[in-house]
Amino acid sequence: MPTLDINCDMGESFGAWRMGDDEAILRHVTSANIACGFHAGDPDVMLATVRAAAGAGVAVGAHPGLPDLQGFGRRAMAMTAPEIYALTVYQVGAMLGVTRAVGVPLHHVKTHGALYNMTARDASLATAVADAVRDVAPGVLIYVANANMAAAAEAAGLRVAHEVYADRSYQDDATLTPRSMPHAMIEDVDASIAQVRRMVLERRVVALSGKSVPIAADTLCIHGDQPGAVVFAERIRRALESDGIAVQPL
Amino acid sequence: MPTLDINCDMGESFGAWRMGDDEAILRHVTSANIACGFHAGDPDVMLATVRAAAGAGVAVGAHPGLPDLQGFGRRAMAMTAPEIYALTVYQVGAMLGVTRAVGVPLHHVKTHGALYNMTARDASLATAVADAVRDVAPGVLIYVANANMAAAAEAAGLRVAHEVYADRSYQDDATLTPRSMPHAMIEDVDASIAQVRRMVLERRVVALSGKSVPIAADTLCIHGDQPGAVVFAERIRRALESDGIAVQPL
Amino acid sequence: MPTLDINCDMGESFGAWRMGDDEAILRHVTSANIACGFHAGDPDVMLATVRAAAGAGVAVGAHPGLPDLQGFGRRAMAMTAPEIYALTVYQVGAMLGVTRAVGVPLHHVKTHGALYNMTARDASLATAVADAVRDVAPGVLIYVANANMAAAAEAAGLRVAHEVYADRSYQDDATLTPRSMPHAMIEDVDASIAQVRRMVLERRVVALSGKSVPIAADTLCIHGDQPGAVVFAERIRRALESDGIAVQPL
Amino acid sequence: MPTLDINCDMGESFGAWRMGDDEAILRHVTSANIACGFHAGDPDVMLATVRAAAGAGVAVGAHPGLPDLQGFGRRAMAMTAPEIYALTVYQVGAMLGVTRAVGVPLHHVKTHGALYNMTARDASLATAVADAVRDVAPGVLIYVANANMAAAAEAAGLRVAHEVYADRSYQDDATLTPRSMPHAMIEDVDASIAQVRRMVLERRVVALSGKSVPIAADTLCIHGDQPGAVVFAERIRRALESDGIAVQPL
Repeated sequence: MPTLDINCDMGESFGAWRMGDDEAILRHVTSANIACGFHAGDPDVMLATVRAAAGAGVAVGAHPGLPDLQGFGRRAMAMTAPEIYALTVYQVGAMLGVTRAVGVPLHHVKTHGALYNMTARDASLATAVADAVRDVAPGVLIYVANANMAAAAEAAGLRVAHEVYADRSYQDDATLTPRSMPHAMIEDVDASIAQVRRMVLERRVVALSGKSVPIAADTLCIHGDQPGAVVFAERIRRALESDGIAVQPL
Repeated sequence: MPTLDINCDMGESFGAWRMGDDEAILRHVTSANIACGFHAGDPDVMLATVRAAAGAGVAVGAHPGLPDLQGFGRRAMAMTAPEIYALTVYQVGAMLGVTRAVGVPLHHVKTHGALYNMTARDASLATAVADAVRDVAPGVLIYVANANMAAAAEAAGLRVAHEVYADRSYQDDATLTPRSMPHAMIEDVDASIAQVRRMVLERRVVALSGKSVPIAADTLCIHGDQPGAVVFAERIRRALESDGIAVQPL
Repeated sequence: MPTLDINCDMGESFGAWRMGDDEAILRHVTSANIACGFHAGDPDVMLATVRAAAGAGVAVGAHPGLPDLQGFGRRAMAMTAPEIYALTVYQVGAMLGVTRAVGVPLHHVKTHGALYNMTARDASLATAVADAVRDVAPGVLIYVANANMAAAAEAAGLRVAHEVYADRSYQDDATLTPRSMPHAMIEDVDASIAQVRRMVLERRVVALSGKSVPIAADTLCIHGDQPGAVVFAERIRRALESDGIAVQPL
Repeated sequence: MPTLDINCDMGESFGAWRMGDDEAILRHVTSANIACGFHAGDPDVMLATVRAAAGAGVAVGAHPGLPDLQGFGRRAMAMTAPEIYALTVYQVGAMLGVTRAVGVPLHHVKTHGALYNMTARDASLATAVADAVRDVAPGVLIYVANANMAAAAEAAGLRVAHEVYADRSYQDDATLTPRSMPHAMIEDVDASIAQVRRMVLERRVVALSGKSVPIAADTLCIHGDQPGAVVFAERIRRALESDGIAVQPL
């Protein structure tokens, strides 16, 4: 039976500020990427979010980011590989502490925002992330969607989950169409669902060029901060399940 | 054979700022309380300090503090027990991550500065700390020097190490003379050494009143940021060892 | 003609996080207390908020708070008078910079949250705030609602605006009923409006005991983060204006 | 009579952490670039440093940097021009507040570290800085050493001071030899002094190629954090003064 995980960024509140409707999203996803206090989240938010995920039976992942709260971890910073290694060790460790406190396993790691983009551009930073994850939590999955991160994760001996998107179009090399290009986003929900269904059942995606290209689809990323996210999550999950795809954590 | 651990706060640099001469102190102490990034320390400093401690054969402890970098964790903050629980979980987890990355065990936890003082005044905060340590790292020691913390640690089922000071005088109830009172500090090195020797060998301390009172002495706290700290650490260690006391981690 | 200013805390967003509906509130108030980056706000938020206030013809005030973003400046911190002086100088200066950039005058200063409460309890901290305001922006108003702050402001030679609340009941000494006591809050909107009307027109308030006590009412504080804040602001303003009270900045 | 200002970065301590020997350096320089709390400095340090500079008769400048305390403002961040404008407004405003509190004028602005480098690479960021300085403190000098910053400052109508280095060699276009190239640093103190003397008296510098090229030298930058900084500052000042150059603020 084909399976798919659905993941979503979560725990992005900070102090008195709320972001996202985690409670609602948790009813439809199967794994949560939870911010670790550098770009979002704080110890209280992390504990509350891991408890909520545990209560909803959703697998808990660490979602480390750059040390830039004001910029929400979305502004690239000129950091060295040792610095990236250290901040990943720290944040994965902090989330490991929280999962232990709640009594659930740490399931996966996925990098956030500019940190993710930096690993896509610089293989040494991808290696730093992968090595840090292996050194702190060798048994976890790492969610990857760029070639550097995939290579580094495999070199580190980590189990890899390939991530795909419902609302982004793809190029002939199975990479995402850059947002700066036309047709980068798939606005139509039915087209989004059709893309994911094909990815899972046929392990292929129809690129923007019309060409059908092979792709690995282990986990689908939902954007919780977009309007309609909860409804979309519910719809796509129901559509996939009605197609006989088991939506479940990896 | 009587034994004593000597501990010192360490890893209190931050970014471009250096504090203390950790390398020199590490030659004389047997356990290190390493800052976890809230009042001091950052991921790079933590990794470097844990590596240095590991290289020196010094046991590594987490030294969580209040989220107040500018105040060095020395300014009391009106925080609730759940907030103290969460920040302890987070910081102990982060340090656990770093020790795993370096490949050494997490040996103990000791609270820093105002957080320590807050637990001495408010039993619910001591309980929050102890529960957090137990939930994240149940096997570690907790260093305690106040009644609330000792009671909370025992209630949590943690192994407790009783901490004593060489350079502070004691009251008849075996608590420290408050710094605001005369003769709170013991300036004379020989008197300091004599106090510690008696604590370990006789399990008693001569209080400021002249009365000899029972005390438990598992670990001695050295202040690394004081002038002469390295020389003092070396002298007291040599003096204790020449008395047949084994200076070693617990 | 009797006059009243209506003020509201504003600019409490931070980075990617939104708080409050400043745009809507600005249509009904006459002065804005804008966070200065320590407990909330950041340079981008401050600029945007001051621009919006300027566009709405609302007077701009600095709203300095404690350096505790996670706690939203609501957790008391053990800080000294020189530290409070310095953080007030810094934040009022930063807001002065923003008002100059936008081309509007800095109109007033009002302290936030725990900083406000600390000045109510410790006269030396009230003096630190007042001296800082005088030293940076001697011509501005200072909004006060506790005896320490009023005395310190007058000693510093600052112009004082006495602040009152619509939704809080008062004691016989014209202080607020503590929130921990019954009937601290006035839930009924008509009763709130009646209280303010009497404060302005008769310069008296009916205390919880039933006694009518004198009170100075220069500016009314609206809580923008409460549900119904915008509607309440609109209603009270209309009610006061229909009573012949000029609602305008001081 | 030819004149030269000598400037140095200062006030780079933070909280409990000390950096540099500001007191000693202040005896030899004529203007101080004082950190504004984003990459270094805090309100207490800023006040103490401005007071010390005022006491030494040294002109006070704001030294704004990126919001990256851990990285000391040395790591480039992907920030937009409006973000750079806002953080400059904020930091110059904060320093303006501190200078008012101390009772000295704000004399100049000089950008720090990666922020400076970002303006050298991106003219829109230089414009953002210059516009911010003009909008907050139109009368101050701006210290510039790159073409973008010079052009932006002139476009903004700011008074410009051209900055030169004693310990760096120059290229034929009067720019600094990049540190990554050989002979970027001038290690010999006498050669350093000779270079500065020529810059001031002849308004020329001998480039690394041997070619003599025109250069404007209004202010000389001393690096206070380098070993021997105080001695060097003293020596170069004495040498310049013995040559009849008036060392004084602009």
